[in-house]
Amino acid sequence: MTAAAEVRTRPDIELARSLFDELAARTRVGRGIVRASYGEGETFAHGLARCTAEGLGLEIETDAALNLYMTLPGRDRGLPRLVVGSHMDSVPQGGNYDGAAGVVAGLSALAGLRMHGSQPRRDVTVMAIRAEEAAWFNSSYIGSHAAFGRLDPAALDVRRSDDGRPLREHLADAGGDPAALLRGESHLKPETIAAFIEVHIEQGPVLETEQLPVGLVTGIRGCLRFAQARCHGAYAHSGAAPRAMRQDAVAATAELVYRLDGACIEMEKAGKDLIFTVGQFSTDPAAAAPSKVAGETRFALDFRGLEEATMREAAGAAQALADEIGRRRRVRFDFGDESYSYAAVMDQAMRARLKGLAGEIGIPAMELPSGAGHDAAVFTAMGVPSAMIFIRNAHGSHNPDEAMELADFASATELLATYIARDGAP
Amino acid sequence: MTAAAEVRTRPDIELARSLFDELAARTRVGRGIVRASYGEGETFAHGLARCTAEGLGLEIETDAALNLYMTLPGRDRGLPRLVVGSHMDSVPQGGNYDGAAGVVAGLSALAGLRMHGSQPRRDVTVMAIRAEEAAWFNSSYIGSHAAFGRLDPAALDVRRSDDGRPLREHLADAGGDPAALLRGESHLKPETIAAFIEVHIEQGPVLETEQLPVGLVTGIRGCLRFAQARCHGAYAHSGAAPRAMRQDAVAATAELVYRLDGACIEMEKAGKDLIFTVGQFSTDPAAAAPSKVAGETRFALDFRGLEEATMREAAGAAQALADEIGRRRRVRFDFGDESYSYAAVMDQAMRARLKGLAGEIGIPAMELPSGAGHDAAVFTAMGVPSAMIFIRNAHGSHNPDEAMELADFASATELLATYIARDGAP
Repeated sequence: MTAAAEVRTRPDIELARSLFDELAARTRVGRGIVRASYGEGETFAHGLARCTAEGLGLEIETDAALNLYMTLPGRDRGLPRLVVGSHMDSVPQGGNYDGAAGVVAGLSALAGLRMHGSQPRRDVTVMAIRAEEAAWFNSSYIGSHAAFGRLDPAALDVRRSDDGRPLREHLADAGGDPAALLRGESHLKPETIAAFIEVHIEQGPVLETEQLPVGLVTGIRGCLRFAQARCHGAYAHSGAAPRAMRQDAVAATAELVYRLDGACIEMEKAGKDLIFTVGQFSTDPAAAAPSKVAGETRFALDFRGLEEATMREAAGAAQALADEIGRRRRVRFDFGDESYSYAAVMDQAMRARLKGLAGEIGIPAMELPSGAGHDAAVFTAMGVPSAMIFIRNAHGSHNPDEAMELADFASATELLATYIARDGAP
Repeated sequence: MTAAAEVRTRPDIELARSLFDELAARTRVGRGIVRASYGEGETFAHGLARCTAEGLGLEIETDAALNLYMTLPGRDRGLPRLVVGSHMDSVPQGGNYDGAAGVVAGLSALAGLRMHGSQPRRDVTVMAIRAEEAAWFNSSYIGSHAAFGRLDPAALDVRRSDDGRPLREHLADAGGDPAALLRGESHLKPETIAAFIEVHIEQGPVLETEQLPVGLVTGIRGCLRFAQARCHGAYAHSGAAPRAMRQDAVAATAELVYRLDGACIEMEKAGKDLIFTVGQFSTDPAAAAPSKVAGETRFALDFRGLEEATMREAAGAAQALADEIGRRRRVRFDFGDESYSYAAVMDQAMRARLKGLAGEIGIPAMELPSGAGHDAAVFTAMGVPSAMIFIRNAHGSHNPDEAMELADFASATELLATYIARDGAP
């Protein structure tokens, strides 16, 4: 191995191209991709990955949840290993790259190492994770939770959104072991994992806007959500009820949304990572009319950020505004139950390492947070140092129009392969 | 007739009570009242009015649209007459008083005059008007338009909302003459009418709040409405799309509603009669989600006022705000088609006369605008000096819970009867 060869490790992009083509050909249903968790499409994807790994001579294992582990042995097999991976399920009518790109990246990186005749210092495991998308069983991270023996037993009884059959049955049919998951058996032990790296398409427009192929994720934003918020006012005739006598739910909710947005802008200006969205806002179709003051609204408040304290502060501001507006406008706000998904800060040393390597091998990259959740959040929560590499992608994800360029995938995967090959090197 | 008797003329409230009871007993369907335009309930109400009028010895006429005219001859039959009345249809599942109270008031006032042995100076006609409610044939004022020969011929082909049969058939079945309406024949000539007075329950909460039994209407507010307004933005991931890259339809629409409300408050403070309502506001149920920036909203803008210029000024402010917000937030507002119903200012001299009489006979009253439309707007548009007397009413109208006290009805009707009896007196 020459010094020049050590600077960069090129992945096998032809392998990646053929895997993406095969996945698209076999898991497309109508316009979009359908790889249901523990369904036909996901199982096909896992079979394709396994078959590819066998061709590369990797060691193959699965666990009780049917996560797939494909390992290239390192020079020192006693060292904690590096895990590289992502999920292979999709949302209904999703795109070909959300999730699968991370597994294909791992395989084409290891194929690249093999072509270069480079053996990594430690074992490198490409992990094809099951059931990350909440669209099917109403919870995220089923596969990665299960790998650590942390699947909530209640999840086994949740019915899949397309066919109504519970996770337990789907898992057993596919050859998994629900009983082992109930016992909390774990395949992965945090102490045996040096680090986790997940390559994933970006689901927002930042890299496209900034015209950069690769993003280095600072952290995965958590989400504090009030999905069933309501404002209770009173219906009245729009021409006959004077302003002072109204209890106008639309006017009150519009004021809340507008002024809360302003409060969040102030928090952002103070340097806090925060993003606030009202994605749903509706009067009651059965009761509202142009000629009526609205007696009720339903809306969703969604706060995201890298720090729980920031999201709590914003939610507190929302409640204070709701109280003030409610008193003045004689309406009652009820935010309802909250849901919270945890934030995960990516490992500082790994981020620095990736940033340095990107600069060294000339891959234009920027740091950015991830707004969506990823399996890397589970690894972080289990105490495994984790990093994520984003690939530029047009049109967002969770739709058939997601559009990743193979050249951008190649840049991200070259960064991954180089990281693996240079592990332990200065 | 003594001088004392001339101060006030008491209506026949026992007659009114029995008419209201009979109407409620015969036109209630489930919880609410159903008197469809040209339907069974309305026709029963007209029959009851006619029968009562015959008992009072009034002269009876009908016109091609089956409006019913019940006339007490005056001392000078050559004078233009006074018309008193309202409609007898209701909305589906409406209340017993909206409309009918005005006809009952006319009859019990004339019965009161008869009891007092008082003959008015000019002919007084109680008019039971057909088909005022837009709920049935999608347009208001069918009966009063027809009485003046001003019914839009296209209205005859409109199908009734409950049974899908056109107005033409309903009218013919009930004994009316659609052909005469097509020819534009009129029963009423503006030049033969001295004035029109409509007694009606208030449809807002003002009299109840102010604890006054009677209202004197300053005018009927017009309505400039954009019922199909939209804001077009772009859907995006709520965690992954940074603020600067968003085209957030909810944030933009909330800002429009909040700031436009502020602009309307300024216009109100400047003394303009204006009322602004957003009664409908909805994201797309099929596309919106708590985790998505909203790509579209649909909403209704409803401006009401006594002057068209004020409503146009407010709509102009809305458009200017929409342009500014649209540019800044990179969304596009489209207000869609407008609908406009004309405002009608009540006759100044009649208002002053009613106000003076109310003070004289000790009926507590206040002036207020009418937010809803009434047949009096048609008489005003035809050049007939018109006035309206509102009766305090709880819970609004167009629902089964409208609640008028008979004592308040008696106050309003005493004012009407006294106005009639004192016609021409100082």
